[in-house]
Amino acid sequence: MNRLEVTEKIISTKVSKGLQWADIAKKVGQSKEWTTALCLGQMTATPAQAKIVGKIFGLTAEEQKWLQVVPYKGSLPTPVPTDPLIYRWYEVVSVYGTTIKELIHEEFGDGIMSAIDFSMDIQREADPKGDRVNVVLSGKFLPYKQY
Amino acid sequence: MNRLEVTEKIISTKVSKGLQWADIAKKVGQSKEWTTALCLGQMTATPAQAKIVGKIFGLTAEEQKWLQVVPYKGSLPTPVPTDPLIYRWYEVVSVYGTTIKELIHEEFGDGIMSAIDFSMDIQREADPKGDRVNVVLSGKFLPYKQY
Amino acid sequence: MNRLEVTEKIISTKVSKGLQWADIAKKVGQSKEWTTALCLGQMTATPAQAKIVGKIFGLTAEEQKWLQVVPYKGSLPTPVPTDPLIYRWYEVVSVYGTTIKELIHEEFGDGIMSAIDFSMDIQREADPKGDRVNVVLSGKFLPYKQY
Amino acid sequence: MNRLEVTEKIISTKVSKGLQWADIAKKVGQSKEWTTALCLGQMTATPAQAKIVGKIFGLTAEEQKWLQVVPYKGSLPTPVPTDPLIYRWYEVVSVYGTTIKELIHEEFGDGIMSAIDFSMDIQREADPKGDRVNVVLSGKFLPYKQY
Amino acid sequence: MNRLEVTEKIISTKVSKGLQWADIAKKVGQSKEWTTALCLGQMTATPAQAKIVGKIFGLTAEEQKWLQVVPYKGSLPTPVPTDPLIYRWYEVVSVYGTTIKELIHEEFGDGIMSAIDFSMDIQREADPKGDRVNVVLSGKFLPYKQY
Amino acid sequence: MNRLEVTEKIISTKVSKGLQWADIAKKVGQSKEWTTALCLGQMTATPAQAKIVGKIFGLTAEEQKWLQVVPYKGSLPTPVPTDPLIYRWYEVVSVYGTTIKELIHEEFGDGIMSAIDFSMDIQREADPKGDRVNVVLSGKFLPYKQY
Amino acid sequence: MNRLEVTEKIISTKVSKGLQWADIAKKVGQSKEWTTALCLGQMTATPAQAKIVGKIFGLTAEEQKWLQVVPYKGSLPTPVPTDPLIYRWYEVVSVYGTTIKELIHEEFGDGIMSAIDFSMDIQREADPKGDRVNVVLSGKFLPYKQY
Amino acid sequence: MNRLEVTEKIISTKVSKGLQWADIAKKVGQSKEWTTALCLGQMTATPAQAKIVGKIFGLTAEEQKWLQVVPYKGSLPTPVPTDPLIYRWYEVVSVYGTTIKELIHEEFGDGIMSAIDFSMDIQREADPKGDRVNVVLSGKFLPYKQY
Amino acid sequence: MNRLEVTEKIISTKVSKGLQWADIAKKVGQSKEWTTALCLGQMTATPAQAKIVGKIFGLTAEEQKWLQVVPYKGSLPTPVPTDPLIYRWYEVVSVYGTTIKELIHEEFGDGIMSAIDFSMDIQREADPKGDRVNVVLSGKFLPYKQY
Amino acid sequence: MNRLEVTEKIISTKVSKGLQWADIAKKVGQSKEWTTALCLGQMTATPAQAKIVGKIFGLTAEEQKWLQVVPYKGSLPTPVPTDPLIYRWYEVVSVYGTTIKELIHEEFGDGIMSAIDFSMDIQREADPKGDRVNVVLSGKFLPYKQY
Repeated sequence: MNRLEVTEKIISTKVSKGLQWADIAKKVGQSKEWTTALCLGQMTATPAQAKIVGKIFGLTAEEQKWLQVVPYKGSLPTPVPTDPLIYRWYEVVSVYGTTIKELIHEEFGDGIMSAIDFSMDIQREADPKGDRVNVVLSGKFLPYKQY
Repeated sequence: MNRLEVTEKIISTKVSKGLQWADIAKKVGQSKEWTTALCLGQMTATPAQAKIVGKIFGLTAEEQKWLQVVPYKGSLPTPVPTDPLIYRWYEVVSVYGTTIKELIHEEFGDGIMSAIDFSMDIQREADPKGDRVNVVLSGKFLPYKQY
Repeated sequence: MNRLEVTEKIISTKVSKGLQWADIAKKVGQSKEWTTALCLGQMTATPAQAKIVGKIFGLTAEEQKWLQVVPYKGSLPTPVPTDPLIYRWYEVVSVYGTTIKELIHEEFGDGIMSAIDFSMDIQREADPKGDRVNVVLSGKFLPYKQY
Repeated sequence: MNRLEVTEKIISTKVSKGLQWADIAKKVGQSKEWTTALCLGQMTATPAQAKIVGKIFGLTAEEQKWLQVVPYKGSLPTPVPTDPLIYRWYEVVSVYGTTIKELIHEEFGDGIMSAIDFSMDIQREADPKGDRVNVVLSGKFLPYKQY
Repeated sequence: MNRLEVTEKIISTKVSKGLQWADIAKKVGQSKEWTTALCLGQMTATPAQAKIVGKIFGLTAEEQKWLQVVPYKGSLPTPVPTDPLIYRWYEVVSVYGTTIKELIHEEFGDGIMSAIDFSMDIQREADPKGDRVNVVLSGKFLPYKQY
Repeated sequence: MNRLEVTEKIISTKVSKGLQWADIAKKVGQSKEWTTALCLGQMTATPAQAKIVGKIFGLTAEEQKWLQVVPYKGSLPTPVPTDPLIYRWYEVVSVYGTTIKELIHEEFGDGIMSAIDFSMDIQREADPKGDRVNVVLSGKFLPYKQY
Repeated sequence: MNRLEVTEKIISTKVSKGLQWADIAKKVGQSKEWTTALCLGQMTATPAQAKIVGKIFGLTAEEQKWLQVVPYKGSLPTPVPTDPLIYRWYEVVSVYGTTIKELIHEEFGDGIMSAIDFSMDIQREADPKGDRVNVVLSGKFLPYKQY
Repeated sequence: MNRLEVTEKIISTKVSKGLQWADIAKKVGQSKEWTTALCLGQMTATPAQAKIVGKIFGLTAEEQKWLQVVPYKGSLPTPVPTDPLIYRWYEVVSVYGTTIKELIHEEFGDGIMSAIDFSMDIQREADPKGDRVNVVLSGKFLPYKQY
Repeated sequence: MNRLEVTEKIISTKVSKGLQWADIAKKVGQSKEWTTALCLGQMTATPAQAKIVGKIFGLTAEEQKWLQVVPYKGSLPTPVPTDPLIYRWYEVVSVYGTTIKELIHEEFGDGIMSAIDFSMDIQREADPKGDRVNVVLSGKFLPYKQY
Repeated sequence: MNRLEVTEKIISTKVSKGLQWADIAKKVGQSKEWTTALCLGQMTATPAQAKIVGKIFGLTAEEQKWLQVVPYKGSLPTPVPTDPLIYRWYEVVSVYGTTIKELIHEEFGDGIMSAIDFSMDIQREADPKGDRVNVVLSGKFLPYKQY
């Protein structure tokens, strides 16, 4: 058994039971973003969280243990994603990458925006010209160390 | 002459004159994100904007014309970026890509978040545990058409 | 179970029953292009459409649910397709890509032709020198936003 | 000297003189699609066409000769294009590739749609919900030979 | 079931029965080159041909139907082949590619040698210094269309 | 100086003088295929051949010496060629590669068709349905050695 | 069944029975280098050799037939090998590749060292500073043909 | 200035002066293999060696200093070499890689054959059936350390 | 059976039994770094070590034999790792690679730091600003040999 | 002007003046590791540091400004490095990557070892069996955030 099998069981069960990530997240007690990433094999659960997720998806004790093992992360099958929704995010990095770099460095100096001490919030913004997806990314700034 | 040469002249002049993107953006009258992307060769200027940018960076009339030509976009030298700051964004797409896909589809159905009808806002958030980079991405949701 | 298994069952059943995409599309009530893309795992069905497709191909209730889940899109096994028919389309993008870019920008300014608000129509055109494949692509123009 | 240098001179002159592809095509007496592809280094001119193009862009006799040499084709710098407008076309091939294949084979049997005996027509279609880019592709069907 | 499974069954049966491609081709009534390509999953059979092949290899009715479905072509596992015999052909394209291009264009003008309206004949040529493999490739010349 | 510079000078001179490969080959006294490959930087000349080529293209004594140096071979800029004419040859290797392998092994046993002790002859074949390009490839069979 | 399955059975049996390649080669009556390559799916056996190998590893009659079929060669899973022992050989080609090319051409002129009419002998050389691996590679020189 | 420029000057001078690697090596007092690798930018000279090489090729004092700087090694432009002579060596690694691994491990246990404490000797072996290239590779065996 | 299956069984058993690498290493009598690498399929066990590991994970006699076979090394699924923890190490090589090269050459001359006669020690360093991971890498310096 | 040109000037001057990184670092007042990375274009200097470096290497005022601009990081020309010294580090990541991951997670839980809040110390360790390179890497542990 491995984590991928647990992820596939979760996805398969979600479809057959018609569950919603927002509802699952409420039961887990974390954001829908983190909870979905956990269920898709990218994050690590505490024993209590694993139990809740296990109950929702009918996971065995051993499958619940796998939710508590740190996974090999990376959720995409190719370096350049083929799925249009995910590609648009890759395109943002491609087109705006140097812009993002310039502006963070202008404000903070040399360093990075953490992808570990990081959170994300995805919301619908109503708009008469067509609703918008609004996403807030928040990452701690980590300055390069001189030594 | 081509757009790349104009971009390189802008970057080079910015360093030698010690300019700031935020100040340049104010003069252009657009956000610092869009203005920086323009100067880095990813966006297209109106004649009026090209004149302002031209004055700031000492561009010739022909160089200003190049700012008004739609560029071949893509600002990174490799499919997987090597620069740590930009890589962290790529990592977010890699680790959270399927999560983002699931949550946008759960809220909106099949479609994408536009990277064209799109804006971005990068801000510093003071935090006693270390300041954070906060980024708001806003893209129109575009549903897949049935026909 | 996953969408790929449903797609393979559909393809396999189509061969053994000798079905035609044009006939299937008529029953589904959409174009043959969209319907084929749906059956090949690229589009998302409504419950009513899933039921019709399910009946044609003998799909179980759970398999029909998978037709209603937004799939991870991208139908080709390699970035550069090896199949000659599909490669010719890739070749058109390779040879004419910059031409298409110039002409759309000349007519519309900076922006893209949507691949989401998009339709396609494939027809035979009789021609004494050998019949032709005529394809009409129609995509909404999306202008880049200034902000 | 090589064809690339001629192409770069043409592009550079077009920007500095503010020319339009549609006007150039009228003078050349061919479609705007073919003429643009010629100027961007993908097609081969007759001596008469080379002379007209040469006059428009101020090309020397030797540069005009290069327009008559069959070029090494392929206009994009990477196998997967980074420019969003061109990428959307690549995405169409990625998402609809197997659909296109199925429908052409259903109508014509085994073979391909030629990218050589091929033409393309790009037009604006007015639409109250936002104008559309309409493209007609026409390629001769070439059946695989049995022998 | 899919075409690959049929191909694997054919290859496996050929080994266990000790069959020869030349004999199979005679029964099918086509060249050994086309017939082998058909059996290896690259070409499309008529119902009559599928029946003959089916009899030789003990294929079921459904497997015979798969021989009549246009396959996704491309018989090699990597873009640069690792097998020495096939690599030598790739090397010919690599070393002589620009030579072939120059000479065909010198004789015919801009266009291609078709790989669809194409045939191939492989023969042994006795030679006292070591026998030679002689291959005749014949492809229709297709001129680029001006429009 | 290097071989590439000599090759570029040859190509450039050929265009400006309007020379033909067939004529050049006659003067060199070898086939047009080998001579073209020599001029395109893939083969090695004898001093006498270098002198003849040098006279045709106005090469200096040092440039003629470079024609006699064994070059680093490989004439294409990418592993998968983008030029349609050359791609069709790559496609033949991709689609027929396993067929070629099977038939040569059936006739000769394990080994390869040499790409070194190799010749190629490209000819026009008149055909009322459209002239054909006929190519004869001849390579010595080299059996794998047991030891 | 295919050759890979036979190779895997051989490897698996070798481990469980604790066999040595040198002993197997003696029974086959060929060098340990060729015999190992045969067992690892890269070479082709005669019926007599297949029988001997079959007896050693307990292969069925059909599995023995597969040893007599010319395999699709290439024993490594990636173009750049990850295994340190094999990588060192790749490194030798990378670092010394142009050196090897210069020296063979200096001695022999244009041509190659055959990898087909080729043998290899791997021996231990005792050395007080640490034993050495000595490898002798012997390949027939094949000159490029002029024609 | 960098090492590559020194290498190019050496190669260029060697052609114009018609020098031989074997002669150069004698003057340097090392093997022809090591000396050629030094001149091609892969090895590091002592001051005395740099002086000798400098005299042969007319190098300036600064260019001689570059010969003494450890270079960034790797002499090939692509991961899979396109030149046929070098490719054959790559093919040996591809086809025999697992064989080499098995036999060295059988004799020595886990570890590698060093590519650093390494030497190579390339010789012509007269043979009535065609002369052979004989190459002796000698590398110290380095066992994996347990700790 | 192969080594990968043994590795997967070990990983799976470790999760279900809740074992710790540090404890396993103590029983094996080697460092936790080497022992983990052994269990993850990268190192080779002695019979005694294999027996101990076999007892801990419930391995059969045959599975224990596989631990004693030198494995094909390389533990990552892609050339550029996607997992953030492992990527950070790759980033260190990317950003500091030339620095490491310069400093080792400055101290030792031309040669390498062995990855075979190599050990690694990973420790927690308490730090009031956040604990640190301290890693000591120790590799024998191997000088390039002149010959 | 850009950072790469400054880096190349620094490297070139270092060779012609025969400077040592250790001495340069003492003058800059930082470790030799950080200082070398700065000079090789990977780190960002303060104005005072830029002045010192500028004096050592004879940099102009504008070149000193470039040392203070955050660079696009990544010092290697290919994803898999070809230089043997740097490759060995890549090999450590390849072979030990999953081991490192397991042991850091066992000690710290889910998170990463920072490559930003990071330092490195390279030292010679005398050893009678051959001196060793000892490297200490120290990176802050950053735990994944739940939200």
